[in-house]
Amino acid sequence: MALPIKEVLTWLTTEQAQGPEQTVDGLKAGDETAVVNGIAVAFMATHSVISQAATLDANLLITHEGLYFSHHDPADLDDLGPVYREKHKLIESSGLAVFRLHDYVHRYQPDGITEGLIQELGWEPYIVDRQPVSAIAEIPPMPLEEVARQVKEKLDLPFVRAVGDPAMPCRRIGLLVGYRGGGGQAIPLFEREHLDLIIAGEGPEWETPEYVRDACSQGRPKALLLLGHAQSEEPGMKLLAKRLKEKFADVPVHYIPGDPLFKWI
Amino acid sequence: MALPIKEVLTWLTTEQAQGPEQTVDGLKAGDETAVVNGIAVAFMATHSVISQAATLDANLLITHEGLYFSHHDPADLDDLGPVYREKHKLIESSGLAVFRLHDYVHRYQPDGITEGLIQELGWEPYIVDRQPVSAIAEIPPMPLEEVARQVKEKLDLPFVRAVGDPAMPCRRIGLLVGYRGGGGQAIPLFEREHLDLIIAGEGPEWETPEYVRDACSQGRPKALLLLGHAQSEEPGMKLLAKRLKEKFADVPVHYIPGDPLFKWI
Repeated sequence: MALPIKEVLTWLTTEQAQGPEQTVDGLKAGDETAVVNGIAVAFMATHSVISQAATLDANLLITHEGLYFSHHDPADLDDLGPVYREKHKLIESSGLAVFRLHDYVHRYQPDGITEGLIQELGWEPYIVDRQPVSAIAEIPPMPLEEVARQVKEKLDLPFVRAVGDPAMPCRRIGLLVGYRGGGGQAIPLFEREHLDLIIAGEGPEWETPEYVRDACSQGRPKALLLLGHAQSEEPGMKLLAKRLKEKFADVPVHYIPGDPLFKWI
Repeated sequence: MALPIKEVLTWLTTEQAQGPEQTVDGLKAGDETAVVNGIAVAFMATHSVISQAATLDANLLITHEGLYFSHHDPADLDDLGPVYREKHKLIESSGLAVFRLHDYVHRYQPDGITEGLIQELGWEPYIVDRQPVSAIAEIPPMPLEEVARQVKEKLDLPFVRAVGDPAMPCRRIGLLVGYRGGGGQAIPLFEREHLDLIIAGEGPEWETPEYVRDACSQGRPKALLLLGHAQSEEPGMKLLAKRLKEKFADVPVHYIPGDPLFKWI
Protein backbone atom coordinates (compact mmCIF):
# COMPACT_ATOMS: atom_id res chain seq x y z
CA MET A 1 0.00 0.00 0.00
CA ALA A 2 1.35 3.39 -0.99
CA LEU A 3 2.75 5.27 2.03
CA PRO A 4 3.16 9.02 1.55
CA ILE A 5 6.22 10.62 3.17
CA LYS A 6 3.84 12.88 5.06
CA GLU A 7 2.45 9.92 6.97
CA VAL A 8 5.92 8.93 8.22
CA LEU A 9 6.63 12.50 9.26
CA THR A 10 3.32 12.75 11.09
CA TRP A 11 4.11 9.59 13.02
CA LEU A 12 7.58 10.89 13.89
CA THR A 13 6.34 14.25 15.14
CA THR A 14 2.85 13.87 16.52
CA GLU A 15 2.29 10.30 17.61
CA GLN A 16 5.69 10.11 19.24
CA ALA A 17 6.34 13.41 20.95
CA GLN A 18 5.09 16.49 22.69
CA GLY A 19 5.94 19.05 20.03
CA PRO A 20 8.36 21.86 20.86
CA GLU A 21 7.00 25.39 20.32
CA GLN A 22 9.93 26.37 18.15
CA THR A 23 11.96 23.81 16.31
CA VAL A 24 14.86 23.35 13.91
CA ASP A 25 13.14 20.17 12.68
CA GLY A 26 11.37 19.92 9.36
CA LEU A 27 11.54 18.84 5.74
CA LYS A 28 14.75 20.36 4.37
CA ALA A 29 14.43 18.97 0.84
CA GLY A 30 11.90 17.03 -1.22
CA ASP A 31 8.14 16.67 -1.38
CA GLU A 32 6.08 15.20 1.44
CA THR A 33 3.35 14.01 -0.93
CA ALA A 34 5.72 11.55 -2.65
CA VAL A 35 5.31 7.84 -1.93
CA VAL A 36 8.03 6.25 0.24
CA ASN A 37 10.23 3.70 -1.56
CA GLY A 38 12.59 3.26 1.32
CA ILE A 39 13.76 5.14 4.42
CA ALA A 40 17.35 5.82 5.39
CA VAL A 41 18.24 7.02 8.89
CA ALA A 42 21.56 8.59 9.92
CA PHE A 43 23.02 10.93 12.51
CA MET A 44 24.14 13.46 9.90
CA ALA A 45 23.51 13.88 6.18
CA THR A 46 27.12 13.86 5.09
CA HIS A 47 28.01 13.54 1.40
CA SER A 48 28.79 9.90 2.00
CA VAL A 49 25.46 9.25 3.78
CA ILE A 50 23.47 10.99 1.03
CA SER A 51 25.22 8.91 -1.63
CA GLN A 52 24.65 5.68 0.30
CA ALA A 53 20.96 6.50 0.84
CA ALA A 54 20.51 7.07 -2.90
CA THR A 55 22.28 3.76 -3.67
CA LEU A 56 19.93 1.95 -1.29
CA ASP A 57 16.91 3.23 -3.26
CA ALA A 58 15.66 5.13 -0.24
CA ASN A 59 13.85 8.35 -1.09
CA LEU A 60 13.41 9.62 2.49
CA LEU A 61 16.46 10.40 4.62
CA ILE A 62 15.91 11.18 8.30
CA THR A 63 18.86 12.81 10.08
CA HIS A 64 19.47 14.32 13.50
CA GLU A 65 21.75 17.27 12.71
CA GLY A 66 21.34 19.97 10.08
CA LEU A 67 22.55 19.73 6.50
CA TYR A 68 24.86 22.74 6.60
CA PHE A 69 27.27 22.44 9.56
CA SER A 70 25.19 24.59 11.89
CA HIS A 71 22.38 24.07 14.40
CA HIS A 72 20.32 26.67 12.56
CA ASP A 73 19.91 26.55 8.78
CA PRO A 74 21.79 29.32 6.96
CA ALA A 75 19.59 31.94 5.30
CA ASP A 76 21.31 31.96 1.93
CA LEU A 77 23.55 29.14 0.68
CA ASP A 78 24.84 31.04 -2.34
CA ASP A 79 26.94 33.40 -0.22
CA LEU A 80 28.60 30.58 1.67
CA GLY A 81 30.84 29.15 -0.99
CA PRO A 82 31.24 26.12 -3.23
CA VAL A 83 31.08 23.43 -0.51
CA TYR A 84 27.55 24.54 0.42
CA ARG A 85 26.46 24.94 -3.20
CA GLU A 86 27.74 21.53 -4.24
CA LYS A 87 26.11 19.84 -1.26
CA HIS A 88 22.83 21.53 -2.14
CA LYS A 89 23.19 20.27 -5.72
CA LEU A 90 23.94 16.73 -4.54
CA ILE A 91 20.77 16.71 -2.42
CA GLU A 92 18.65 18.08 -5.24
CA SER A 93 19.99 15.60 -7.78
CA SER A 94 19.62 12.67 -5.37
CA GLY A 95 15.86 13.22 -5.34
CA LEU A 96 15.87 12.50 -1.61
CA ALA A 97 13.41 14.03 0.77
CA VAL A 98 15.50 15.00 3.82
CA PHE A 99 13.78 15.40 7.16
CA ARG A 100 15.64 16.69 10.21
CA LEU A 101 14.46 15.05 13.42
CA HIS A 102 16.25 16.73 16.29
CA ASP A 103 13.99 18.50 18.78
CA TYR A 104 11.15 15.99 18.48
CA VAL A 105 13.21 12.86 19.08
CA HIS A 106 14.78 14.51 22.14
CA ARG A 107 11.24 15.11 23.44
CA TYR A 108 10.07 11.54 23.07
CA GLN A 109 9.08 10.03 26.40
CA PRO A 110 11.76 8.99 27.23
CA ASP A 111 14.25 10.97 25.07
CA GLY A 112 14.75 8.83 21.95
CA ILE A 113 18.43 9.65 21.63
CA THR A 114 19.34 9.03 25.27
CA GLU A 115 17.36 5.78 25.10
CA GLY A 116 19.40 4.63 22.12
CA LEU A 117 22.62 5.18 24.04
CA ILE A 118 21.26 3.28 27.06
CA GLN A 119 20.30 0.32 24.87
CA GLU A 120 23.57 0.31 22.93
CA LEU A 121 25.46 0.21 26.25
CA GLY A 122 23.15 -2.59 27.47
CA TRP A 123 22.42 -0.47 30.56
CA GLU A 124 18.62 -0.74 30.71
CA PRO A 125 18.83 -2.78 33.96
CA TYR A 126 20.94 -0.05 35.60
CA ILE A 127 18.79 2.99 34.82
CA VAL A 128 17.26 4.41 38.01
CA ASP A 129 15.90 7.70 36.61
CA ARG A 130 15.01 9.07 33.18
CA GLN A 131 14.91 12.88 33.20
CA PRO A 132 14.07 15.20 30.27
CA VAL A 133 17.70 15.77 29.27
CA SER A 134 19.57 12.99 31.07
CA ALA A 135 19.39 9.51 32.48
CA ILE A 136 20.91 8.25 35.72
CA ALA A 137 22.45 4.79 35.93
CA GLU A 138 23.65 2.86 38.95
CA ILE A 139 26.12 0.23 37.84
CA PRO A 140 28.07 -2.34 39.84
CA PRO A 141 31.03 -0.22 41.05
CA MET A 142 34.08 -0.37 38.81
CA PRO A 143 37.12 1.84 38.16
CA LEU A 144 36.72 4.70 35.67
CA GLU A 145 39.23 3.02 33.38
CA GLU A 146 37.09 -0.13 33.27
CA VAL A 147 33.91 1.87 32.57
CA ALA A 148 35.77 3.57 29.71
CA ARG A 149 36.96 0.24 28.36
CA GLN A 150 33.45 -1.24 28.40
CA VAL A 151 31.87 1.88 26.83
CA LYS A 152 34.50 1.89 24.07
CA GLU A 153 33.86 -1.76 23.36
CA LYS A 154 30.06 -1.41 23.29
CA LEU A 155 30.11 1.69 21.07
CA ASP A 156 33.14 0.60 19.02
CA LEU A 157 35.17 3.76 19.76
CA PRO A 158 38.92 4.07 19.20
CA PHE A 159 39.32 6.63 22.02
CA VAL A 160 37.42 8.48 24.68
CA ARG A 161 38.62 11.60 26.49
CA ALA A 162 38.57 11.26 30.26
CA VAL A 163 38.99 13.59 33.24
CA GLY A 164 39.50 12.06 36.68
CA ASP A 165 41.51 9.32 38.33
CA PRO A 166 41.41 6.16 36.15
CA ALA A 167 41.28 4.09 39.35
CA MET A 168 38.30 5.98 40.81
CA PRO A 169 35.36 3.67 41.57
CA CYS A 170 32.25 4.72 39.61
CA ARG A 171 28.75 3.65 40.55
CA ARG A 172 26.29 6.50 39.98
CA ILE A 173 26.52 7.78 36.42
CA GLY A 174 24.75 10.51 34.44
CA LEU A 175 24.27 10.19 30.67
CA LEU A 176 24.13 13.44 28.66
CA VAL A 177 24.06 12.97 24.89
CA GLY A 178 25.23 15.40 22.21
CA TYR A 179 26.18 18.89 23.29
CA ARG A 180 24.70 18.46 26.77
CA GLY A 181 28.20 18.00 28.21
CA GLY A 182 28.44 21.80 28.66
CA GLY A 183 28.66 23.28 32.14
CA GLY A 184 25.07 24.53 32.16
CA GLN A 185 23.71 20.97 32.01
CA ALA A 186 26.45 18.77 33.41
CA ILE A 187 27.64 20.68 36.51
CA PRO A 188 24.19 21.00 38.15
CA LEU A 189 23.55 17.33 37.34
CA PHE A 190 26.74 16.30 39.18
CA GLU A 191 25.62 18.28 42.23
CA ARG A 192 21.92 17.44 42.25
CA GLU A 193 22.33 13.73 41.57
CA HIS A 194 25.53 13.08 43.54
CA LEU A 195 27.14 11.49 40.51
CA ASP A 196 30.54 9.84 40.37
CA LEU A 197 30.76 10.12 36.61
CA ILE A 198 29.12 11.84 33.67
CA ILE A 199 29.30 10.28 30.23
CA ALA A 200 28.61 12.98 27.64
CA GLY A 201 28.98 13.75 23.96
CA GLU A 202 30.88 17.02 23.95
CA GLY A 203 30.96 20.47 25.54
CA PRO A 204 33.35 23.40 25.97
CA GLU A 205 36.62 22.24 27.50
CA TRP A 206 36.93 24.98 30.13
CA GLU A 207 33.51 24.21 31.62
CA THR A 208 32.66 20.70 32.86
CA PRO A 209 36.15 19.20 32.44
CA GLU A 210 37.72 21.96 34.57
CA TYR A 211 34.96 21.64 37.16
CA VAL A 212 35.73 17.91 37.44
CA ARG A 213 39.45 18.60 37.72
CA ASP A 214 38.94 21.12 40.54
CA ALA A 215 36.52 18.80 42.33
CA CYS A 216 39.20 16.07 42.26
CA SER A 217 41.79 18.52 43.62
CA GLN A 218 39.40 19.18 46.52
CA GLY A 219 39.24 15.48 47.39
CA ARG A 220 35.73 15.20 45.88
CA PRO A 221 36.33 12.45 43.35
CA LYS A 222 34.34 12.92 40.13
CA ALA A 223 34.97 11.87 36.57
CA LEU A 224 33.95 12.68 33.02
CA LEU A 225 34.03 10.68 29.81
CA LEU A 226 33.54 12.54 26.53
CA LEU A 227 32.51 10.16 23.76
CA GLY A 228 32.18 12.64 20.92
CA HIS A 229 28.94 14.24 19.75
CA ALA A 230 28.07 11.76 16.98
CA GLN A 231 29.25 8.77 19.01
CA SER A 232 26.81 9.64 21.80
CA GLU A 233 23.82 10.24 19.48
CA GLU A 234 24.19 7.70 16.68
CA PRO A 235 22.74 4.90 18.83
CA GLY A 236 19.58 7.01 19.20
CA MET A 237 19.17 7.24 15.42
CA LYS A 238 19.88 3.52 15.13
CA LEU A 239 17.06 2.92 17.63
CA LEU A 240 14.80 5.21 15.59
CA ALA A 241 15.46 3.08 12.50
CA LYS A 242 14.44 0.01 14.47
CA ARG A 243 11.19 1.67 15.54
CA LEU A 244 10.44 2.79 11.98
CA LYS A 245 10.97 -0.79 10.80
CA GLU A 246 8.45 -2.03 13.36
CA LYS A 247 5.90 0.67 12.54
CA PHE A 248 6.19 0.61 8.73
CA ALA A 249 6.91 -3.06 8.15
CA ASP A 250 6.23 -2.93 4.39
CA VAL A 251 8.90 -0.33 3.68
CA PRO A 252 12.66 -1.00 3.64
CA VAL A 253 14.35 0.96 6.44
CA HIS A 254 18.15 1.30 6.48
CA TYR A 255 20.28 2.70 9.28
CA ILE A 256 23.47 4.21 7.84
CA PRO A 257 26.24 4.43 10.44
CA GLY A 258 28.60 7.40 10.16
CA ASP A 259 32.29 6.94 9.55
CA PRO A 260 34.54 8.12 12.40
CA LEU A 261 34.95 11.90 12.12
CA PHE A 262 38.34 12.35 13.75
CA LYS A 263 41.66 10.69 13.36
CA TRP A 264 43.73 10.71 16.55
CA ILE A 265 47.26 11.60 15.56
CA MET B 1 60.36 50.50 44.35
CA ALA B 2 56.87 49.52 45.47
CA LEU B 3 54.67 48.56 42.53
CA PRO B 4 50.92 48.62 43.20
CA ILE B 5 48.85 45.91 41.53
CA LYS B 6 46.82 48.65 39.89
CA GLU B 7 49.84 49.76 37.88
CA VAL B 8 50.30 46.30 36.38
CA LEU B 9 46.60 46.10 35.53
CA THR B 10 46.71 49.53 33.90
CA TRP B 11 49.63 48.46 31.74
CA LEU B 12 47.84 45.25 30.76
CA THR B 13 44.61 46.98 29.78
CA THR B 14 45.38 50.47 28.58
CA GLU B 15 48.92 50.62 27.29
CA GLN B 16 48.57 47.34 25.48
CA ALA B 17 45.10 47.22 23.94
CA GLN B 18 42.14 48.96 22.44
CA GLY B 19 39.66 48.30 25.22
CA PRO B 20 36.50 46.31 24.44
CA GLU B 21 33.23 48.10 25.26
CA GLN B 22 31.97 45.20 27.33
CA THR B 23 34.33 42.73 28.91
CA VAL B 24 34.53 39.66 31.09
CA ASP B 25 37.96 40.87 32.22
CA GLY B 26 38.62 42.38 35.62
CA LEU B 27 39.86 41.87 39.16
CA LYS B 28 38.00 38.80 40.44
CA ALA B 29 39.60 38.70 43.89
CA GLY B 30 41.95 40.85 45.97
CA ASP B 31 42.83 44.51 46.31
CA GLU B 32 44.42 46.52 43.52
CA THR B 33 46.07 48.94 45.95
CA ALA B 34 48.29 46.16 47.40
CA VAL B 35 51.98 46.12 46.47
CA VAL B 36 53.07 43.37 44.07
CA ASN B 37 55.40 40.74 45.60
CA GLY B 38 55.34 38.52 42.58
CA ILE B 39 53.20 37.80 39.56
CA ALA B 40 51.97 34.39 38.43
CA VAL B 41 50.49 33.88 34.97
CA ALA B 42 48.44 30.87 33.86
CA PHE B 43 45.80 29.87 31.34
CA MET B 44 43.29 28.95 34.03
CA ALA B 45 43.16 29.40 37.79
CA THR B 46 42.73 25.75 38.69
CA HIS B 47 43.12 24.61 42.28
CA SER B 48 46.58 23.41 41.43
CA VAL B 49 47.59 26.72 39.81
CA ILE B 50 46.28 28.75 42.76
CA SER B 51 48.23 26.59 45.20
CA GLN B 52 51.41 26.85 43.11
CA ALA B 53 51.06 30.63 42.81
CA ALA B 54 50.75 30.94 46.58
CA THR B 55 53.83 28.71 47.08
CA LEU B 56 55.81 30.93 44.71
CA ASP B 57 55.05 33.96 46.91
CA ALA B 58 53.19 35.63 44.08
CA ASN B 59 50.28 37.79 45.22
CA LEU B 60 48.90 38.61 41.76
CA LEU B 61 47.61 35.84 39.52
CA ILE B 62 46.73 36.68 35.92
CA THR B 63 44.62 34.11 34.08
CA HIS B 64 42.87 33.90 30.74
CA GLU B 65 39.69 31.99 31.58
CA GLY B 66 37.20 32.56 34.37
CA LEU B 67 37.46 31.12 37.88
CA TYR B 68 34.17 29.24 37.83
CA PHE B 69 33.98 27.00 34.73
CA SER B 70 32.02 29.47 32.65
CA HIS B 71 32.80 32.33 30.26
CA HIS B 72 30.59 34.62 32.37
CA ASP B 73 30.96 34.79 36.15
CA PRO B 74 28.07 33.17 38.03
CA ALA B 75 25.86 35.60 39.95
CA ASP B 76 25.78 33.69 43.23
CA LEU B 77 28.32 31.03 44.18
CA ASP B 78 26.44 29.82 47.24
CA ASP B 79 23.71 28.18 45.16
CA LEU B 80 26.18 26.28 43.01
CA GLY B 81 27.41 23.71 45.47
CA PRO B 82 30.49 22.78 47.48
CA VAL B 83 33.03 22.75 44.64
CA TYR B 84 32.36 26.44 43.96
CA ARG B 85 32.30 27.36 47.65
CA GLU B 86 35.56 25.58 48.42
CA LYS B 87 37.28 27.15 45.43
CA HIS B 88 36.10 30.57 46.60
CA LYS B 89 37.48 29.83 50.06
CA LEU B 90 40.82 28.70 48.63
CA ILE B 91 41.15 31.94 46.67
CA GLU B 92 40.22 34.08 49.68
CA SER B 93 42.63 32.27 51.98
CA SER B 94 45.47 32.40 49.43
CA GLY B 95 45.42 36.19 49.66
CA LEU B 96 45.94 36.32 45.88
CA ALA B 97 44.63 39.07 43.72
CA VAL B 98 43.23 37.33 40.63
CA PHE B 99 42.89 39.29 37.41
CA ARG B 100 41.21 37.80 34.35
CA LEU B 101 42.82 38.94 31.12
CA HIS B 102 40.77 37.56 28.27
CA ASP B 103 39.19 40.18 26.01
CA TYR B 104 42.07 42.64 26.31
CA VAL B 105 44.86 40.24 25.42
CA HIS B 106 42.85 39.07 22.39
CA ARG B 107 42.67 42.73 21.31
CA TYR B 108 46.38 43.40 21.53
CA GLN B 109 47.84 44.37 18.16
CA PRO B 110 48.46 41.65 17.13
CA ASP B 111 46.27 39.32 19.27
CA GLY B 112 48.50 38.36 22.22
CA ILE B 113 47.20 34.80 22.41
CA THR B 114 47.50 34.02 18.71
CA GLU B 115 50.98 35.55 18.78
CA GLY B 116 52.02 33.21 21.56
CA LEU B 117 50.95 30.20 19.52
CA ILE B 118 52.85 31.49 16.48
CA GLN B 119 56.02 31.92 18.52
CA GLU B 120 55.69 28.56 20.28
CA LEU B 121 55.37 26.88 16.87
CA GLY B 122 58.38 28.87 15.61
CA TRP B 123 56.23 30.04 12.68
CA GLU B 124 56.99 33.79 12.72
CA PRO B 125 58.80 33.50 9.36
CA TYR B 126 55.75 31.88 7.76
CA ILE B 127 53.05 34.37 8.83
CA VAL B 128 51.68 36.26 5.83
CA ASP B 129 48.70 37.94 7.49
CA ARG B 130 47.64 38.79 11.04
CA GLN B 131 43.88 39.40 11.26
CA PRO B 132 41.84 40.36 14.36
CA VAL B 133 40.84 36.77 15.20
CA SER B 134 43.25 34.68 13.14
CA ALA B 135 46.66 34.48 11.54
CA ILE B 136 47.52 33.01 8.15
CA ALA B 137 50.73 31.04 7.66
CA GLU B 138 52.32 29.78 4.45
CA ILE B 139 54.64 26.92 5.28
CA PRO B 140 56.82 24.77 3.04
CA PRO B 141 54.26 22.20 1.79
CA MET B 142 54.13 19.03 3.86
CA PRO B 143 51.57 16.27 4.48
CA LEU B 144 48.92 16.89 7.15
CA GLU B 145 50.36 14.05 9.21
CA GLU B 146 53.77 15.74 9.24
CA VAL B 147 52.25 19.11 10.24
CA ALA B 148 50.47 17.32 13.08
CA ARG B 149 53.69 15.63 14.17
CA GLN B 150 55.63 18.92 14.23
CA VAL B 151 52.84 20.79 16.05
CA LYS B 152 52.60 18.02 18.67
CA GLU B 153 56.35 18.13 19.19
CA LYS B 154 56.51 21.93 19.49
CA LEU B 155 53.56 22.15 21.88
CA ASP B 156 54.34 18.89 23.69
CA LEU B 157 50.90 17.33 23.05
CA PRO B 158 50.11 13.63 23.43
CA PHE B 159 47.39 13.74 20.74
CA VAL B 160 45.65 16.03 18.30
CA ARG B 161 42.32 15.35 16.61
CA ALA B 162 42.47 15.59 12.85
CA VAL B 163 39.96 15.66 9.98
CA GLY B 164 41.21 15.16 6.44
CA ASP B 165 43.56 12.90 4.53
CA PRO B 166 46.82 12.47 6.52
CA ALA B 167 48.72 12.53 3.22
CA MET B 168 47.17 15.81 2.03
CA PRO B 169 49.82 18.45 1.30
CA CYS B 170 49.29 21.55 3.47
CA ARG B 171 50.78 24.93 2.65
CA ARG B 172 48.32 27.70 3.51
CA ILE B 173 47.19 27.42 7.14
CA GLY B 174 44.83 29.41 9.36
CA LEU B 175 45.42 29.62 13.11
CA LEU B 176 42.33 30.08 15.32
CA VAL B 177 43.00 29.85 19.05
CA GLY B 178 40.59 28.85 21.82
CA TYR B 179 36.94 28.44 20.90
CA ARG B 180 37.38 30.03 17.49
CA GLY B 181 37.29 26.60 15.85
CA GLY B 182 33.48 26.91 15.61
CA GLY B 183 31.80 27.09 12.22
CA GLY B 184 31.04 30.79 12.44
CA GLN B 185 34.75 31.66 12.45
CA ALA B 186 36.49 28.75 10.79
CA ILE B 187 34.28 28.01 7.76
CA PRO B 188 34.34 31.55 6.32
CA LEU B 189 38.10 31.67 6.93
CA PHE B 190 38.61 28.50 4.87
CA GLU B 191 36.62 30.04 2.00
CA ARG B 192 37.95 33.59 2.14
CA GLU B 193 41.60 32.65 2.57
CA HIS B 194 41.72 29.52 0.40
CA LEU B 195 43.23 27.54 3.24
CA ASP B 196 44.41 23.96 3.10
CA LEU B 197 44.31 23.56 6.86
CA ILE B 198 42.98 25.23 9.97
CA ILE B 199 44.68 24.63 13.31
CA ALA B 200 42.24 25.52 16.08
CA GLY B 201 41.62 25.04 19.78
CA GLU B 202 38.13 23.58 19.88
CA GLY B 203 34.62 24.05 18.51
CA PRO B 204 31.36 22.08 18.13
CA GLU B 205 32.00 18.79 16.36
CA TRP B 206 29.11 18.98 13.88
CA GLU B 207 30.25 22.37 12.53
CA THR B 208 33.79 22.82 11.13
CA PRO B 209 34.81 19.13 11.28
CA GLU B 210 31.76 18.09 9.23
CA TYR B 211 32.33 20.93 6.76
CA VAL B 212 35.88 19.69 6.22
CA ARG B 213 34.70 16.12 5.81
CA ASP B 214 32.12 17.12 3.18
CA ALA B 215 34.65 19.32 1.37
CA CYS B 216 36.99 16.32 1.13
CA SER B 217 34.13 14.17 -0.21
CA GLN B 218 33.66 16.78 -2.94
CA GLY B 219 37.30 16.50 -4.01
CA ARG B 220 38.12 19.84 -2.35
CA PRO B 221 40.89 18.75 -0.01
CA LYS B 222 40.86 20.58 3.32
CA ALA B 223 42.03 19.61 6.78
CA LEU B 224 41.53 20.51 10.41
CA LEU B 225 43.67 19.98 13.49
CA LEU B 226 42.07 20.50 16.90
CA LEU B 227 44.71 21.05 19.57
CA GLY B 228 42.43 21.54 22.57
CA HIS B 229 41.37 24.88 24.01
CA ALA B 230 44.07 25.25 26.66
CA GLN B 231 46.76 23.81 24.40
CA SER B 232 46.09 26.51 21.81
CA GLU B 233 46.01 29.40 24.30
CA GLU B 234 48.61 28.54 26.92
CA PRO B 235 51.47 29.74 24.70
CA GLY B 236 49.78 33.16 24.63
CA MET B 237 49.81 33.39 28.41
CA LYS B 238 53.42 32.17 28.45
CA LEU B 239 54.25 35.03 26.07
CA LEU B 240 52.40 37.45 28.35
CA ALA B 241 54.57 36.33 31.28
CA LYS B 242 57.65 37.07 29.19
CA ARG B 243 56.36 40.56 28.39
CA LEU B 244 55.57 41.24 32.04
CA LYS B 245 59.11 40.18 32.96
CA GLU B 246 60.54 42.66 30.49
CA LYS B 247 58.24 45.48 31.60
CA PHE B 248 58.46 44.95 35.37
CA ALA B 249 62.03 43.73 35.70
CA ASP B 250 62.18 44.20 39.50
CA VAL B 251 59.29 41.84 40.21
CA PRO B 252 59.45 38.04 40.01
CA VAL B 253 57.14 36.79 37.24
CA HIS B 254 56.29 33.08 37.01
CA TYR B 255 54.49 31.31 34.21
CA ILE B 256 52.64 28.27 35.57
CA PRO B 257 51.90 25.72 32.84
CA GLY B 258 48.68 23.75 33.17
CA ASP B 259 48.67 20.00 33.56
CA PRO B 260 47.04 18.11 30.67
CA LEU B 261 43.27 18.18 31.16
CA PHE B 262 42.29 14.98 29.39
CA LYS B 263 43.52 11.44 29.49
CA TRP B 264 43.05 9.59 26.21
CA ILE B 265 41.74 6.16 27.06
